[in-house]
Amino acid sequence: MDDLFRLSHLAGRMQPSPIRELFKLIAQPELISFAGGLPDPGAFPVDRVASCADVLNTNGLELLQYGASEGFGPLRDILLDMSGRRLGYSVSGAELLVTSGSQQAVDLVGRALLDPGDVVVVEAPTYPGTLHSLRNVGARFVAVACDSEGMRVDRLPKAVARCERDTGRRPKLIYTVPDFSNPSGACLSLQRRSQLLSFAQELRIPILEDDPYGCLRYRGESLPSIKSLAGDSPTVIYCSSFSKILAPGVRVAWAVADPELIRTMVLVRQGEDLCTSTVTQGLVAEYCRRGYLEDHLEKILAIYSAKCSAMELALAKHLPQGAAAWHAPAGGFFFWLRLDGISSRDLFHRAIGERVAFVPGEAFYPDVDEQIGDTVTGDRFARLCFTFADTQQIDEGCRRLSRALSPAPTAG
Amino acid sequence: MDDLFRLSHLAGRMQPSPIRELFKLIAQPELISFAGGLPDPGAFPVDRVASCADVLNTNGLELLQYGASEGFGPLRDILLDMSGRRLGYSVSGAELLVTSGSQQAVDLVGRALLDPGDVVVVEAPTYPGTLHSLRNVGARFVAVACDSEGMRVDRLPKAVARCERDTGRRPKLIYTVPDFSNPSGACLSLQRRSQLLSFAQELRIPILEDDPYGCLRYRGESLPSIKSLAGDSPTVIYCSSFSKILAPGVRVAWAVADPELIRTMVLVRQGEDLCTSTVTQGLVAEYCRRGYLEDHLEKILAIYSAKCSAMELALAKHLPQGAAAWHAPAGGFFFWLRLDGISSRDLFHRAIGERVAFVPGEAFYPDVDEQIGDTVTGDRFARLCFTFADTQQIDEGCRRLSRALSPAPTAG
Repeated sequence: MDDLFRLSHLAGRMQPSPIRELFKLIAQPELISFAGGLPDPGAFPVDRVASCADVLNTNGLELLQYGASEGFGPLRDILLDMSGRRLGYSVSGAELLVTSGSQQAVDLVGRALLDPGDVVVVEAPTYPGTLHSLRNVGARFVAVACDSEGMRVDRLPKAVARCERDTGRRPKLIYTVPDFSNPSGACLSLQRRSQLLSFAQELRIPILEDDPYGCLRYRGESLPSIKSLAGDSPTVIYCSSFSKILAPGVRVAWAVADPELIRTMVLVRQGEDLCTSTVTQGLVAEYCRRGYLEDHLEKILAIYSAKCSAMELALAKHLPQGAAAWHAPAGGFFFWLRLDGISSRDLFHRAIGERVAFVPGEAFYPDVDEQIGDTVTGDRFARLCFTFADTQQIDEGCRRLSRALSPAPTAG
Repeated sequence: MDDLFRLSHLAGRMQPSPIRELFKLIAQPELISFAGGLPDPGAFPVDRVASCADVLNTNGLELLQYGASEGFGPLRDILLDMSGRRLGYSVSGAELLVTSGSQQAVDLVGRALLDPGDVVVVEAPTYPGTLHSLRNVGARFVAVACDSEGMRVDRLPKAVARCERDTGRRPKLIYTVPDFSNPSGACLSLQRRSQLLSFAQELRIPILEDDPYGCLRYRGESLPSIKSLAGDSPTVIYCSSFSKILAPGVRVAWAVADPELIRTMVLVRQGEDLCTSTVTQGLVAEYCRRGYLEDHLEKILAIYSAKCSAMELALAKHLPQGAAAWHAPAGGFFFWLRLDGISSRDLFHRAIGERVAFVPGEAFYPDVDEQIGDTVTGDRFARLCFTFADTQQIDEGCRRLSRALSPAPTAG
């Protein structure tokens, strides 16, 4: 870059995500995408959201003005109620912050707690947006392997001890998506939730529990959030979002945490973007007030559950025996395939040739030079989102994927 | 705070704004507020904004989905056109970023360019939100005095030289609000704009030109933005916003800058909040597409111009001779009073007693321990916003202020 702009140390190390480069290859007609983790736009409650825009007429003077950094009052009331039900206790206003997507909640927690070089425990694989947020503040990562029941919590003590030995620092945060992780789809077992919490309390490391998919369970019984297991302990910082249960375009999410931490996040936030749009907060509040959210959840649960089953069926039907292994998720957006004998990046390029796309696994792991302890990479994995495509596309896409997995011998 | 949360170095130094504490005193009935820098809610184009919510019906599938970090296509087209007219050249898409308020543009520039301890030149007085954003990344400040023609650019070389001598660092950024500065209301003269640009180009220090009020001129001829004087030089980073010309609640603003800097800001932003709400971007784009913005600007220019004159008149009529001095602004939102013989904080408390509020000057200066070079403070100044109150309140508020300035002798 022109020497006029001398980038900050942190910004200077930023690299465009290689995945975003791959995404450019996806923009072609007739391609079936399992790549983006997008809600089904066909399920968006367009009419009802549009009808709620009445609030711009009835409450325009307030909705068009600056809002409080903590969030718009009527929406906060709804979120306190929703959070109370999800978290199993009466959440106080001082514990709540409305954010512009959960991405911002992670960003604010990172800015509030982390100095460059500080270490965060993440699941491997984990949500790349969180890696990006925490990289923005110079974090390094301890990656703890996952299996079909989520993070291998039993490995945590050794990983933390090794981090302390190697870096002289105890990790400052443990990040987890316990319900239907992006990308693994795994649901952290109840026993592991309790173990994780005990461990975090003992070592005094806060847990950041990211819960965008908790309401999207298609089979089995709901498990309590880690925050709810923590009772009145401040150990768990909880965040969730309307992005997956209503619409990402509204950019409305929320965090529930210790009041003093929330105060610090608000302070940071006042220098970041002041507040979330009161227009979209008012729209979401009205949508919830009319009871539409319950109806919509019921609707998308049916749709996504059917799509999840469709992908399970299509993978079993089309994929060559032994080419890939997976566990069908009980909720969320994703299948996570372990490939046999092919790198996911190679498979990606072959798949694009067959006009089907997914996200290669490497995106979901910290870069090797950001990792403390045993380094892990995702080269043998592939994330398939089942919520965006329709069921016919899901079947056809899996058929195409099978061709990519077993290419015809080239003429020679 | 509980030792569970060990705050980052930067967050640990953050203090709640003393001004926000003062604002709590303002929440009382019958108080006339010249404090908040708020648009007139009575002028909000509620009906027309609400009518534009039709786009949620016609374009809901796109508006409810995730959007590009760079901004929503149709809004970007409008902003390229608006920017072209304001900046006097054909702005390219690679130079444009939609942000969630200009506050976020400043935040992203800060995160892209500044390491802790880096120095930014600001006007004294300057916009406190920018101090807050830059404080979030650990900036220190060189405060250059202003007069009725804006920043004393002639003092810049000496201030920069002294900064280099004292700290070993050249400032990495010069922040200015050339048109109708918040809080001083001053408009940087054409000669000073050119001088500032030459100086910045010579020293290779980028200028961040914040232009929320450029369209809000009530008398005299418009001056070219500094960005437009820079031609094809990348020296100037420009940002503006819909907050003051339409509605702050939409949280839609934009930055125009060197494409490589924009790319870096986008990268940082992807870890911060992903994108601005597509719902509000779509709403604003539709509002502009229908030609409503021109109408609205005409309307608020008339309203604010009348309010500006009303405050000029009321101050002259009511304030005790010699108690305060000011220059009537030619645009923007604010009168900036230099007080004689009383601190603005003392006056604030007396004014609250008289049920009128303003913002004491200290808010608009960096803290003394953040300043490099000659330190300045705002204890003798007061900011009065004339856009929020109605003209009758403006007259009555100035009458009350005069009582605060010349309190009746207490019985003794």
